[in-house]
Amino acid sequence: MPERTRFVLDERDMPTAWYNVLPDLPTPLDPPLGPDGNPIGPEALAPLFPMELIKQEVSTDRYIDIPGAIIDVYKTYRPSPLQRARQLEKNLGLPEGVKIFYKYEGVSPAGSHKPNTAIAQAYFNKQEGINKISTETGAGQWGSALAIAGALFGIEIEVFMVKVSFNQKPYRRILMETYGATVHASPSNLTNAGRHVLERDPDSTGSLGIAISEAVEVAATNEDMHYSLGSVLNHVCLHQTIVGQEAILQMEMAEAEPDVVIGCVGGGSNFAGISYPYYYRRKQGLSNARLVAVEPKACPTLTAGDYRYDWGDEAKMTPQMLMYTLGHDFVPAGIHAGGLRYHADAPTLCNLVHNDEIEAVAVHQVACFEAAVQFARAEGILPAPESSHAIRVAIDEALAAKDAGEDKTVLFNLSGHGHFDLSAYEAYNAGTLIDYDFASGTHVEED
Amino acid sequence: MPERTRFVLDERDMPTAWYNVLPDLPTPLDPPLGPDGNPIGPEALAPLFPMELIKQEVSTDRYIDIPGAIIDVYKTYRPSPLQRARQLEKNLGLPEGVKIFYKYEGVSPAGSHKPNTAIAQAYFNKQEGINKISTETGAGQWGSALAIAGALFGIEIEVFMVKVSFNQKPYRRILMETYGATVHASPSNLTNAGRHVLERDPDSTGSLGIAISEAVEVAATNEDMHYSLGSVLNHVCLHQTIVGQEAILQMEMAEAEPDVVIGCVGGGSNFAGISYPYYYRRKQGLSNARLVAVEPKACPTLTAGDYRYDWGDEAKMTPQMLMYTLGHDFVPAGIHAGGLRYHADAPTLCNLVHNDEIEAVAVHQVACFEAAVQFARAEGILPAPESSHAIRVAIDEALAAKDAGEDKTVLFNLSGHGHFDLSAYEAYNAGTLIDYDFASGTHVEED
Repeated sequence: MPERTRFVLDERDMPTAWYNVLPDLPTPLDPPLGPDGNPIGPEALAPLFPMELIKQEVSTDRYIDIPGAIIDVYKTYRPSPLQRARQLEKNLGLPEGVKIFYKYEGVSPAGSHKPNTAIAQAYFNKQEGINKISTETGAGQWGSALAIAGALFGIEIEVFMVKVSFNQKPYRRILMETYGATVHASPSNLTNAGRHVLERDPDSTGSLGIAISEAVEVAATNEDMHYSLGSVLNHVCLHQTIVGQEAILQMEMAEAEPDVVIGCVGGGSNFAGISYPYYYRRKQGLSNARLVAVEPKACPTLTAGDYRYDWGDEAKMTPQMLMYTLGHDFVPAGIHAGGLRYHADAPTLCNLVHNDEIEAVAVHQVACFEAAVQFARAEGILPAPESSHAIRVAIDEALAAKDAGEDKTVLFNLSGHGHFDLSAYEAYNAGTLIDYDFASGTHVEED
Repeated sequence: MPERTRFVLDERDMPTAWYNVLPDLPTPLDPPLGPDGNPIGPEALAPLFPMELIKQEVSTDRYIDIPGAIIDVYKTYRPSPLQRARQLEKNLGLPEGVKIFYKYEGVSPAGSHKPNTAIAQAYFNKQEGINKISTETGAGQWGSALAIAGALFGIEIEVFMVKVSFNQKPYRRILMETYGATVHASPSNLTNAGRHVLERDPDSTGSLGIAISEAVEVAATNEDMHYSLGSVLNHVCLHQTIVGQEAILQMEMAEAEPDVVIGCVGGGSNFAGISYPYYYRRKQGLSNARLVAVEPKACPTLTAGDYRYDWGDEAKMTPQMLMYTLGHDFVPAGIHAGGLRYHADAPTLCNLVHNDEIEAVAVHQVACFEAAVQFARAEGILPAPESSHAIRVAIDEALAAKDAGEDKTVLFNLSGHGHFDLSAYEAYNAGTLIDYDFASGTHVEED
């Protein structure tokens, strides 16, 4: 009988509810704080978000049904495949007992996991009569996903794109525009937040924190407009749990249980997507998997940040949340994994890390690209630079098991393809890629 | 019961043999001719191709088993999904009885159907001890696919890339290099064929015909090197039939039979992939599907070419084959669908068109991009410019059925995603895209 490599689910077996981690957190989530420093209730979010998303943000229901209209759109690219990385295993010389599996989200129309929440957010906004949404984007993954969702549901999308990416990655901008979105380079002159930054630093190349401020301001000052965030918030992490729930079913098809589940972390929603369903599975006594969040050493929020209340954006437009943070005005070094350049993380993820339920590790980008190329030349798929962080640690975990003579089943989330990131690979191929190290306050030369 | 949208096959249900159209052609295929104008036998191809591929080139077996090692690599991205385009149907206002399905090959690591044959060709070369392969590529789809296959099987790949694409599409070049391939701009100074072109026209931007000459010359003059072609030849069309065979199984899952099967045509292998298995199904009396090959009006080989013997390349390095051709030295206008800029077509396809078994139609690129954007905003996926030709005709076929009040089930092959073609979409978005018309000998302004 031939060996199984690819585990696909029928659309009829796709999970029909999202998994909500809130009721299962080891300690209750601390409330967000308003401008006066006092806790705010869900109603404070009403100018920015539709009521259904606000309800999800604070819901204590373990499962939240996915509306049929969202399922219908999910079915244009989901369930996504789960693969055994047989050729990579062979190239690494792994023994029989050490296995690597990956869930692949790059098959979505945006080439990443981001549409899982973009589609949901667009749908719930449309249901409440909202026809315009603003958002921010770094390298453009999130903006592309929301642009697609906007096109599908007939919603105008206005994107504030971090200026360095706007200039360096025109293709992502064109992609958003092709779906009908309007894209501005951030900081822009369109908002107080943007103008304020430009006054201090006319050459500012922007940051996710600044772009969030601009997008929030535009939504807050336009009555018929809402705002959408691509990570961090509870409801965003919620929507991504479709990934991990599918993975559980597919790993069952593979008759394997992961010993370790790995994902990269920017704001945390990608990692939440693959890991939270396994966290619950562990609580059920069905799994012993370690859950490992991987972040860049240039922006090591979980491993080097302070656990304290902080704003989600540069201009303090958002509520404060209890997070691991490097400071709301922190501008990370220009690593190529633009989606991992956020100063803080999802409060639910921070809670789980703080309670030792989830491990965090930080890695350098050159080592990640090395792993990405090794993966590409074995499995075919060229990974997004963000996803390469998960690959690095997946390979390291597998090799450690090999060295220790132990069995281990590794599962990681390959959150996207790298077809928009070839300039990063060009730098890696040319040997000109540089590592940045937050801890030493400077970059270190690659070895 | 929810409506079905996505039809996925388990890896264990993937076809295990390729379908070979040769024994089922309405008239025998005319033999290729050598330099002296006389028919050549398979042995003449031995300097360029491994014996297994030469056997496939002339085999009269209807089915040829796919070796397990190729199946194993196919399983890293196959079976590919088949989707019902429900949102597109809705946006087009189609009645109940008019349905659009598409097979999606953009999920492969190269983002197109090309790995289906690249993997097979690399495997059979490796089996015969070949460790170096040369090839040509236009926009880079084929070169990327062979670079990936080379990485997987440990074969050095040398690619001659049409200069205009080499300069305009650096990302495809970087992609090939990341997989370990060497890429030259063609015409180059590395070959007699290239030097000859450059002497006449130092500013030549190249063509597929010239690049083929260079790649063939390099392989022919290096004893340990073989050559690989991404389309046209019988064995290439053969390998692509995995696509149509999967589609037949998936359409059965959908309980639907196509009335028309549509694919774009450059060299013909993509179209062969989706249509030849349906051609055989028609011969079996199981299908009445019309088979429609779509080509660009800028390079309308099947609709405006002569049916005669011609060379496959500019410098007459290849044998002559009986094809529809615009002339081996024809350099098509710079349409964005680089993969459709070939002066002739697969001899098997030409045979079937000549015998009225397959229809051919030519379309303008602006109308194709219009269809592509309409598709993207409905189904999410941004199509490759090549694939947009199939979408244009699929939409036209569906609308014609709607207007006529007839039922019709349309199936087309979405051969690749457009994530490497954003500059083309930028031109379309800006309204600066121009149509080129071979018939009038000049370009016509877009309307």
